[in-house]
Amino acid sequence: MNAHETAERGDPTADLVTSVFASACTSRAAFEDVTGKWASLALIALGEGTHRFGELRRRVEGVSEKMLSQALQALERDGMVTRTVVTAIPPRVEYDLTPLGKRVAGQLRLLADLLEATAGDVGKAREAFGQRTT
Amino acid sequence: MNAHETAERGDPTADLVTSVFASACTSRAAFEDVTGKWASLALIALGEGTHRFGELRRRVEGVSEKMLSQALQALERDGMVTRTVVTAIPPRVEYDLTPLGKRVAGQLRLLADLLEATAGDVGKAREAFGQRTT
Repeated sequence: MNAHETAERGDPTADLVTSVFASACTSRAAFEDVTGKWASLALIALGEGTHRFGELRRRVEGVSEKMLSQALQALERDGMVTRTVVTAIPPRVEYDLTPLGKRVAGQLRLLADLLEATAGDVGKAREAFGQRTT
Repeated sequence: MNAHETAERGDPTADLVTSVFASACTSRAAFEDVTGKWASLALIALGEGTHRFGELRRRVEGVSEKMLSQALQALERDGMVTRTVVTAIPPRVEYDLTPLGKRVAGQLRLLADLLEATAGDVGKAREAFGQRTT
């Protein structure tokens, strides 16, 4: 049981202590889920709007059906993503962000913006590192 | 070669297009490196200041020596982390963030803050999900 759960189950005045550094903390598990290789990109894509499964798969280059499906299920379980079966002919499944998912996706988008803006620096660092170590 | 590299090598007026969604883009590789299971936590820890290897290992609960070492090397290669051998008796190795590493670590810290603050919501979502699917 982590500090967070102790506070939830018992004394409501107990301090709610959560830390991503603590391996047993729910925040650590959620942090790992949302920073997962495919989950992170799926969240950013869903930040742009509703996607069907196939649309997400095309947007997130390189993801397999199985990996995307697992990532989306973990995000649904964590309350970040909703999955809606639309009864049409043919029926379709749509994915959206919850309010929490939107906040997380917003943070991930900012991180992606930073790395897209600094890709040149990373490229140069990699070249210099390669020359130093070979 | 990705759009970014095309622009770097040739025509300086070419548009610099980077996208974490493109599997061949340097920004995608950097995004994967900094959101890695152990690299992300190491970056956040280093955002708090200089750490020796053993200090980092204790801070990031659950990481093995091998995994931490691999994560730090990837971050050093990407120009996010510096590794300094301090000539003392006994000699020691210290890790620090570069200016780019600081910006990335700042974004990851904000994401961690959000997940620490909302761990209760994630816990409730997981309970509800478990009841729905079992």
